[in-house]
Amino acid sequence: MPDTPDTTQMPYQLPFPSDALPEIVISKAIPEDERIWVPQAENVWFRPLCLNRSQGYWVNLLRVRRSGVLSRHRHPQAVHGFVLRGRWHYLEHDWTAEEGSYVYEAPGETHTLVVPEDVKEMITLFQVNGVMCYVDPWGKVTGYEDVFTKIDMCGKHYADVGLGMEFVDSFIR
Amino acid sequence: MPDTPDTTQMPYQLPFPSDALPEIVISKAIPEDERIWVPQAENVWFRPLCLNRSQGYWVNLLRVRRSGVLSRHRHPQAVHGFVLRGRWHYLEHDWTAEEGSYVYEAPGETHTLVVPEDVKEMITLFQVNGVMCYVDPWGKVTGYEDVFTKIDMCGKHYADVGLGMEFVDSFIR
Repeated sequence: MPDTPDTTQMPYQLPFPSDALPEIVISKAIPEDERIWVPQAENVWFRPLCLNRSQGYWVNLLRVRRSGVLSRHRHPQAVHGFVLRGRWHYLEHDWTAEEGSYVYEAPGETHTLVVPEDVKEMITLFQVNGVMCYVDPWGKVTGYEDVFTKIDMCGKHYADVGLGMEFVDSFIR
Repeated sequence: MPDTPDTTQMPYQLPFPSDALPEIVISKAIPEDERIWVPQAENVWFRPLCLNRSQGYWVNLLRVRRSGVLSRHRHPQAVHGFVLRGRWHYLEHDWTAEEGSYVYEAPGETHTLVVPEDVKEMITLFQVNGVMCYVDPWGKVTGYEDVFTKIDMCGKHYADVGLGMEFVDSFIR
């Protein structure tokens, strides 16, 4: 707490702690540069916003085109989603998430995301905590993704497309 | 893990754990019913989406109209913001968040949110973790908000406007 704030400066601004991390500000989360989208599967891409290695979660946009499917996976931690474009549903639920919908997915869910054929493109803001475990129809784990696999995918892709591997660093906290 | 999945049911859906919480699905996060907005200060409202009492955070839409100001406050934990409508800035930063912008605010920030006079309305999706501490120009705490003050504000407001205090329960996890 400063002893003598310079209140002649109006409004007075409190300093940030010297150990604080910098903020991330991305003016256009849906990017104009197609190279920023990282391919993840056929017709599926993600765009990193925050890759949080100190708490083990990631915030990204997920883009799916032309009746794409995101393979069956289980979440041991919560997921938050906000649909920016298009429409999708989970095979395991009877509701549909539409543009402007918010979804909280509780820990313990195993689900399969499907974009219907009449939707050309869906883009959803997702915060995924911890890990997603890909599973077979018996629930056996066949693979996983976490913030570190995401960082690796971004780094490789950005090196390939000429943005440079270090482009991913701006999203890491 | 089920021993004998009924794979004649196509596609086979894995059951959720019996202890799992239900999901939250809100088709129109920006509500048509004005009563869902909870007044917070002059020209400032919030709309709860997830009030997470087990982890101590909340996800909400913040709506500010006509050059509103959100009093100076400090965040000891991260905040994620995604602007759905309008434009705003912090007195303490030189950037502006616009429609479609994503912002990660690092733990340790003290800031004051301002909506400029030419913006009739801004709506931003915010995830706030832990607590916000309102502070005076010397950094001394003058008040706070956490998921429990939010739950109380919602309950009182929904009782007042005829939705019933229990309306808030659907957002609590």
